[in-house]
Amino acid sequence: MEERHNLELKPIGIIHSPYKNTREAPYQGYKSKEICQIEVFKEFEEGLEDMEKFSHIIVIYWFHKSQGYHLLVKTPWDDSLHGLFTTRSPHRPCPLGLTVVELIAREKNILKVKGLDAVDGTPLLDIKPCILSIEEKLAVKLGWLEGKLGVERS
Amino acid sequence: MEERHNLELKPIGIIHSPYKNTREAPYQGYKSKEICQIEVFKEFEEGLEDMEKFSHIIVIYWFHKSQGYHLLVKTPWDDSLHGLFTTRSPHRPCPLGLTVVELIAREKNILKVKGLDAVDGTPLLDIKPCILSIEEKLAVKLGWLEGKLGVERS
Repeated sequence: MEERHNLELKPIGIIHSPYKNTREAPYQGYKSKEICQIEVFKEFEEGLEDMEKFSHIIVIYWFHKSQGYHLLVKTPWDDSLHGLFTTRSPHRPCPLGLTVVELIAREKNILKVKGLDAVDGTPLLDIKPCILSIEEKLAVKLGWLEGKLGVERS
Repeated sequence: MEERHNLELKPIGIIHSPYKNTREAPYQGYKSKEICQIEVFKEFEEGLEDMEKFSHIIVIYWFHKSQGYHLLVKTPWDDSLHGLFTTRSPHRPCPLGLTVVELIAREKNILKVKGLDAVDGTPLLDIKPCILSIEEKLAVKLGWLEGKLGVERS
């Protein structure tokens, strides 16, 4: 079946963060005050033009420490098993990570950002402008996550 | 350099939409009233458990019609050239698409959604819960897109 063919990606950069392993990375980056540096490889620098005028960007990256996955998973928020695709677990069939981060500064091909939860050395796949808040004017229901965000267990 | 190694993905499903080609697909899916069907392959169905309790989901897919890219691009919103990574152009080094959609219903491994702008037959890579509105309580600056969303030229 054609639609099941493998697809190939090449990273466009690398993420430098203070988190040396998955245990050090926060469950949700938006709580973090740490500054991470997103290094976009030089050959893609032109694609960042005017990026510094955006306050927030969407960063898509490769969970390079992820190995295997389960379709039902536990999370820091409760003791129940949840469908993998209703969670942000890094262990997924396609190990793609996605975080909305605050863009602090750009210096040529380096973006300094706040709110990123990626481990140091994470391959960067894509950056998109954050226009989700515009797209999403509807009331959002959070399923099993309702009322749990911000109160994860340690 | 290790970080530049190719990465391999396998789709977890396929998107069925009324848009047979890129010309038919809307610039921004959130304006669309069309219902699309996201078929998650049967072997991943368990990972959708309780998904129907979420009102919105993030869909990540492969721009399978994309060929090549330019680092400076024009958009429907103005006549200027913009850095590729400040746009949602489907022509990107990593051709990953991302849309926040409204989840209308789930029937086993099929999700019916509103607001998706993907072309029929698009490979599905991942689904994540939409908690961006929670993550993003800050005022968002839209760079060159400020004031232009919703008024794209035909």
